[in-house]
Amino acid sequence: MSAVTVILGSKSDLPVVKKCLDMLKQFSIDAQARVCSAHRTPEMLRQIISDAEASGTEVFIAAAGKAAHLPGVIAAFTTRPVIGLPIKSSLMDGLDSLLSMVQMPSGVPVATVAVDGAANAAILAAQMLSIGNAELRAALCEYKKTLAEQVIAADAAMQLELD
Amino acid sequence: MSAVTVILGSKSDLPVVKKCLDMLKQFSIDAQARVCSAHRTPEMLRQIISDAEASGTEVFIAAAGKAAHLPGVIAAFTTRPVIGLPIKSSLMDGLDSLLSMVQMPSGVPVATVAVDGAANAAILAAQMLSIGNAELRAALCEYKKTLAEQVIAADAAMQLELD
Amino acid sequence: MSAVTVILGSKSDLPVVKKCLDMLKQFSIDAQARVCSAHRTPEMLRQIISDAEASGTEVFIAAAGKAAHLPGVIAAFTTRPVIGLPIKSSLMDGLDSLLSMVQMPSGVPVATVAVDGAANAAILAAQMLSIGNAELRAALCEYKKTLAEQVIAADAAMQLELD
Amino acid sequence: MSAVTVILGSKSDLPVVKKCLDMLKQFSIDAQARVCSAHRTPEMLRQIISDAEASGTEVFIAAAGKAAHLPGVIAAFTTRPVIGLPIKSSLMDGLDSLLSMVQMPSGVPVATVAVDGAANAAILAAQMLSIGNAELRAALCEYKKTLAEQVIAADAAMQLELD
Amino acid sequence: MSAVTVILGSKSDLPVVKKCLDMLKQFSIDAQARVCSAHRTPEMLRQIISDAEASGTEVFIAAAGKAAHLPGVIAAFTTRPVIGLPIKSSLMDGLDSLLSMVQMPSGVPVATVAVDGAANAAILAAQMLSIGNAELRAALCEYKKTLAEQVIAADAAMQLELD
Amino acid sequence: MSAVTVILGSKSDLPVVKKCLDMLKQFSIDAQARVCSAHRTPEMLRQIISDAEASGTEVFIAAAGKAAHLPGVIAAFTTRPVIGLPIKSSLMDGLDSLLSMVQMPSGVPVATVAVDGAANAAILAAQMLSIGNAELRAALCEYKKTLAEQVIAADAAMQLELD
Amino acid sequence: MSAVTVILGSKSDLPVVKKCLDMLKQFSIDAQARVCSAHRTPEMLRQIISDAEASGTEVFIAAAGKAAHLPGVIAAFTTRPVIGLPIKSSLMDGLDSLLSMVQMPSGVPVATVAVDGAANAAILAAQMLSIGNAELRAALCEYKKTLAEQVIAADAAMQLELD
Amino acid sequence: MSAVTVILGSKSDLPVVKKCLDMLKQFSIDAQARVCSAHRTPEMLRQIISDAEASGTEVFIAAAGKAAHLPGVIAAFTTRPVIGLPIKSSLMDGLDSLLSMVQMPSGVPVATVAVDGAANAAILAAQMLSIGNAELRAALCEYKKTLAEQVIAADAAMQLELD
Repeated sequence: MSAVTVILGSKSDLPVVKKCLDMLKQFSIDAQARVCSAHRTPEMLRQIISDAEASGTEVFIAAAGKAAHLPGVIAAFTTRPVIGLPIKSSLMDGLDSLLSMVQMPSGVPVATVAVDGAANAAILAAQMLSIGNAELRAALCEYKKTLAEQVIAADAAMQLELD
Repeated sequence: MSAVTVILGSKSDLPVVKKCLDMLKQFSIDAQARVCSAHRTPEMLRQIISDAEASGTEVFIAAAGKAAHLPGVIAAFTTRPVIGLPIKSSLMDGLDSLLSMVQMPSGVPVATVAVDGAANAAILAAQMLSIGNAELRAALCEYKKTLAEQVIAADAAMQLELD
Repeated sequence: MSAVTVILGSKSDLPVVKKCLDMLKQFSIDAQARVCSAHRTPEMLRQIISDAEASGTEVFIAAAGKAAHLPGVIAAFTTRPVIGLPIKSSLMDGLDSLLSMVQMPSGVPVATVAVDGAANAAILAAQMLSIGNAELRAALCEYKKTLAEQVIAADAAMQLELD
Repeated sequence: MSAVTVILGSKSDLPVVKKCLDMLKQFSIDAQARVCSAHRTPEMLRQIISDAEASGTEVFIAAAGKAAHLPGVIAAFTTRPVIGLPIKSSLMDGLDSLLSMVQMPSGVPVATVAVDGAANAAILAAQMLSIGNAELRAALCEYKKTLAEQVIAADAAMQLELD
Repeated sequence: MSAVTVILGSKSDLPVVKKCLDMLKQFSIDAQARVCSAHRTPEMLRQIISDAEASGTEVFIAAAGKAAHLPGVIAAFTTRPVIGLPIKSSLMDGLDSLLSMVQMPSGVPVATVAVDGAANAAILAAQMLSIGNAELRAALCEYKKTLAEQVIAADAAMQLELD
Repeated sequence: MSAVTVILGSKSDLPVVKKCLDMLKQFSIDAQARVCSAHRTPEMLRQIISDAEASGTEVFIAAAGKAAHLPGVIAAFTTRPVIGLPIKSSLMDGLDSLLSMVQMPSGVPVATVAVDGAANAAILAAQMLSIGNAELRAALCEYKKTLAEQVIAADAAMQLELD
Repeated sequence: MSAVTVILGSKSDLPVVKKCLDMLKQFSIDAQARVCSAHRTPEMLRQIISDAEASGTEVFIAAAGKAAHLPGVIAAFTTRPVIGLPIKSSLMDGLDSLLSMVQMPSGVPVATVAVDGAANAAILAAQMLSIGNAELRAALCEYKKTLAEQVIAADAAMQLELD
Repeated sequence: MSAVTVILGSKSDLPVVKKCLDMLKQFSIDAQARVCSAHRTPEMLRQIISDAEASGTEVFIAAAGKAAHLPGVIAAFTTRPVIGLPIKSSLMDGLDSLLSMVQMPSGVPVATVAVDGAANAAILAAQMLSIGNAELRAALCEYKKTLAEQVIAADAAMQLELD
């Protein structure tokens, strides 16, 4: 059972997407990762989507660079939320991928996060899954505290460094 | 009880945001709309967020133009998913607002939709709320069929027009 | 029999695409026009592609605005050349649509023309079809002469105007 | 006899264009490659175009960076399809070259592919040449299967890696 | 005898270019204006260039929109300075035309002025022609004084308006 | 007592911000530097602002990358001038951060300097503090002379180098 | 005596700049407005700067469109803070003017506000002048309250409208 | 006597500008190079301009990065043609510098060449000086032949390489 299915348009995106998978694990969210292309393996993509839905996937995350149609094409086949993660690999630091994901036509949204924002894709998935899941919400609150503590620690470290 | 709280950075964004409110109504989702500014009324914003959470809000939608910090600032105060709706009102057809929303730092995501993509913000909220809500999911499937029917009807209409 | 199948992502693109259909007619190329969306009617799109191929389509032209995945998704299902016609309808005069069409991944090209370059999409299709078609090539040579004559006439008209 | 003539605006573009030449060879398409500049050797360019047409060239591919007028100038002298391949060498990762190629005026199209999309330029040429060439079309279908197999293999490899 | 030859890629650019012609007249510079396209009438363009040089043209001004190859192609055939005047007619207020003109490869410069900067194209031509022409230089100095007087008058007018 | 409070959105911005701190020291301006995030530690940010104001801070400088909401959020809580320093860390060399800082809505300005313009942020703060501070103004005049001397020295050095 | 000197690069910018002058008046700040061009009247500009400093100007505001060198050139001649107000008049909604103002070299900052952000230029000037001016600071605090009240009123009005 | 005066906004631009100085030497054009800043040494800049004009300078070349006001400020003080050479040093590969140079207001043109187009700045200066200078024009024609020969040689070299 995979509550989240993460699809990479290309295996070369894995170094960036790894942070997404790690963050999902940190929230104890069952997830699978698949390489699948909207343009090279459209049949396989439909199969992955329908298998994923059958086995409990509630959120899709799709990472892609360049024209980056992957999340949009997934959104064509599911009513689950689809998170788009643009990968920096081409023009203007990934602006092409970002625009291609976010500018979806009316009726078929893609929830787009920052270019290379792999951890945020996972956190957004966790936030969605926490609707009606008190345990996961508590974990998200804990995580928010950790973020704050990291800032406080960084501030303290800088004070020492600057002295 | 408002499952979705929609916050407008400025009342002047209402004509665009109206399509979001209408779509939420179409899915029978309880929603409230508030005008509140991240920069002019930061206290009020925190109050709205905490009141909303207390009264059952599971998803926030924030519409803003120009620097468009609103969804990011909301995301700082909640672990619920925050949907960012950039409004076309300034530079390069809203590119400034889009970048300002989507490029959030690690740990605090904003689920960004297209510039002026008001209906999609609502549909994305519905998709999130449909996690564990079979009725809403069925409504989303119905809506997806309607979209297809509209395309088929448009195709038929064009055939007549072109003859 | 339609040597060219023109697909519009939305019927609202027809005013621009009309110039493409007219130009195809001017070259006596059999063509059909369909409204079909990559995201709203993915099944119908596959049907149109396979029907078109069965009935002799050698070139596809796909017109779309915003995220504009249409030509890329068609290219996933055919080995015929796919011409992408970006429509000005959103950010930065259609730059989002242009990038989304042209930046296709390796293996699945889309032959992209200018934003709103409807006539050129038709001429490019005619150029492709003229491979091994002497009559069409002759028509293209004639058209090239017409273009030159229009420039010469415009120059003459301007001389009168400036005197 | 060269069914495709590939023209490089500068010999320094060869490392990118090599992938185009290799892909043409993979499809057993006779091709010649020439260095020729629209601005430095306009006479030579016309000679190459007319010689190419005389010896059977059906498709031109032009690779260029910066202002990248080469494919447009070729298109001025031929009715064969001209594929434009923008080379990343200057502003904003080649956006200047992309816009300069794709934004051709009405009447004189350039079929533009992605920045540095050398393999796709070759595949697009093969798709054009496959009109009325069953053998080449079969090869393109085979190639499409290979692309899919590569994705499937990459997916399998990632599963092992992630375990 | 035309010291300056102004070439318009399209007669539709005349309303903008008119300011250029008027400014040349104001400096008593003999000029001719021609409509000629780099892509539709390449032969005619070469003829115009060589006729212009024979009849005394020392500076070329080329106005064009979209891909805007015109000044670059002229520069391929002459050693006289070529001034490029980008016309706002397409993407991002003419940014495509501006980049296409200014980003010329090494060896073949185009002296580019602002988008729609028609008067400045004329003034730049006058500055070039004033090399070794004391009378024209004096006229340019006079013009510079006029510019200053206009500013002073505008300042005075605003003081009245604001009182 | 810190006349200037410099806030970094992330400790990783310190290498750039160091030049700002050094320049403030050069002008003998008391300054403190803090790491604090608008999104991860919004409470701490308010505390820092109010403590800073209590202890004499007259100018805030905020450095941030990506969505870069930090200076805008500070400006929401203070009437002191807030200087925004965009850090190059993401899209298009920091254009996202620049737009996010500078495009503030009416009523809540951020005084934005160049991307990575750390020294200029300090000099601008010094210029503000020099209002009614003759000593600091004199120091700024001295600094302006130093800048000129550096240019003169660079010119002399280049003459030697070019001989 | 003018605590603030506002300089317009062109009288045509007055409709936008008017909001700046009105806001300065609202804060009871003595201000003068002048039309002066960095390029057409460089001498007059130096005179205005030195007269302004002599008569008590502590802050300069410079509004300009297109290349928008005005605030940078003022900053070359004064150590007072210079606020740059980019005016939307040319490429990409004023992005050219914004970049030209904000990207100043090290040593000579311009405090840049949003494109057409005329009111914010005035408020920023007021914030600077409030350093050591308790009355003005109090007025700024009052203004901040007004801003909040406007938002609260807009929220109330929208509630009525939506019922 | 320096027919051309080349001014660098910063000595750090010399590695790029060197190609400009070498090209001027190749055309036997007397030139001087100076480091001078529009913002740090405005007085020195005026002195350089007036000395240059007195000693025979007919064309100015100004190289600058970032806000790049240098050529515009020079153009304010001379009626000689001013060539702007944008240097890649900051945002989007120098797009900020390019826009800041080319978008000059009406009346005060800057003849802008490509980002880092140092050789072209020199060739453009030579073209301007060749007005009424038959020897220089002949040299430019010779240079044009050399360019063509380089292309022919590169083509021949590539043929060998590809065999």
